[in-house]
Amino acid sequence: MQQLKDRILKEAAVASGHVLKVDSFLNHQMDVALFYEIGKEFHRLFKQDGITKIVTVEASGIGIACLAALFFKVPVVFAKKQKTANLVEDVYTTSVSSFTHGKLYDIVISKEFLNPEDRILLIDDFLANGCALNGLRDLVEQAEATLVGAGIVIEKGFQGGGDQLRAEGMRIESLAVIEKMDKDGIVISGE
Amino acid sequence: MQQLKDRILKEAAVASGHVLKVDSFLNHQMDVALFYEIGKEFHRLFKQDGITKIVTVEASGIGIACLAALFFKVPVVFAKKQKTANLVEDVYTTSVSSFTHGKLYDIVISKEFLNPEDRILLIDDFLANGCALNGLRDLVEQAEATLVGAGIVIEKGFQGGGDQLRAEGMRIESLAVIEKMDKDGIVISGE
Repeated sequence: MQQLKDRILKEAAVASGHVLKVDSFLNHQMDVALFYEIGKEFHRLFKQDGITKIVTVEASGIGIACLAALFFKVPVVFAKKQKTANLVEDVYTTSVSSFTHGKLYDIVISKEFLNPEDRILLIDDFLANGCALNGLRDLVEQAEATLVGAGIVIEKGFQGGGDQLRAEGMRIESLAVIEKMDKDGIVISGE
Repeated sequence: MQQLKDRILKEAAVASGHVLKVDSFLNHQMDVALFYEIGKEFHRLFKQDGITKIVTVEASGIGIACLAALFFKVPVVFAKKQKTANLVEDVYTTSVSSFTHGKLYDIVISKEFLNPEDRILLIDDFLANGCALNGLRDLVEQAEATLVGAGIVIEKGFQGGGDQLRAEGMRIESLAVIEKMDKDGIVISGE
């Protein structure tokens, strides 16, 4: 998606530890006009797939998921992060390790909001090592719902998480794939 | 806002400890078509006020803030929650106590995203004891930006936080005010 790639090249910075800093438009300050175009693009890519629900994880996936949901005309469910394992009977839960923060946490979704009849599109702002997406897939599988695929705003291709999940059969559509990033700059696939 | 009030009366449940459970449409599963109408209503109420930025706090305020921002055509900035006090020079930070979870946490916003020229609309899903809104106001004041007011989806009027903040001069527009809730049901102002 050219508008997004241009924006990354113009505003993103590379922080220590392979962190791509895009908090001026994506995950702290949010450019909702851009999110609208991102949502429209996800809809173009998945509109034939009978999506009944969009699933994301708090916090920075929520805005993008909501704008995409406008086009799909379906609800969004966001998985909640919890520090400790809660063995509660009425939620699906799985464990995720955070790339950015180096911590282990649980994500949970109430059982009432994921059903076997659902056809799920996962949406998230970043795909790095794939742990978050892997966790969301686990929740969808626990609910015996159908996972149609995942829409990702920025994939850090060099970290390999996307390739691993694709090899396992997941359909992933990333609007910008970072091939390389370091102090000398950012290389985006296709640019 | 009638559509919202109807939805609360139809779907909300009262959980223990004065918690209004609206996670089927507001803060776990999110009805984005309803959020669109909520955003439109906030715009109707504040469109004369020269808003330059919408500020909310993660996680459940983000979706509503993003839909409202579509109408205002301004960016959203969400305050991030942190467990521990980080004395970082490039962020505004303040301490907030959570009504729902009974914990103390910090909220932070990067200084680069709040400026003295900004005219800020705060948006949040709930107003109970007013601590979150009070914290967001503190961040806006630290930045010497102008606080225009706050748009709240559901105010629990009986907890008094809104009245206190109004008495201090804050303009608060709540789309539904709960006067009373218990095992016998929910009473919404004006219904």
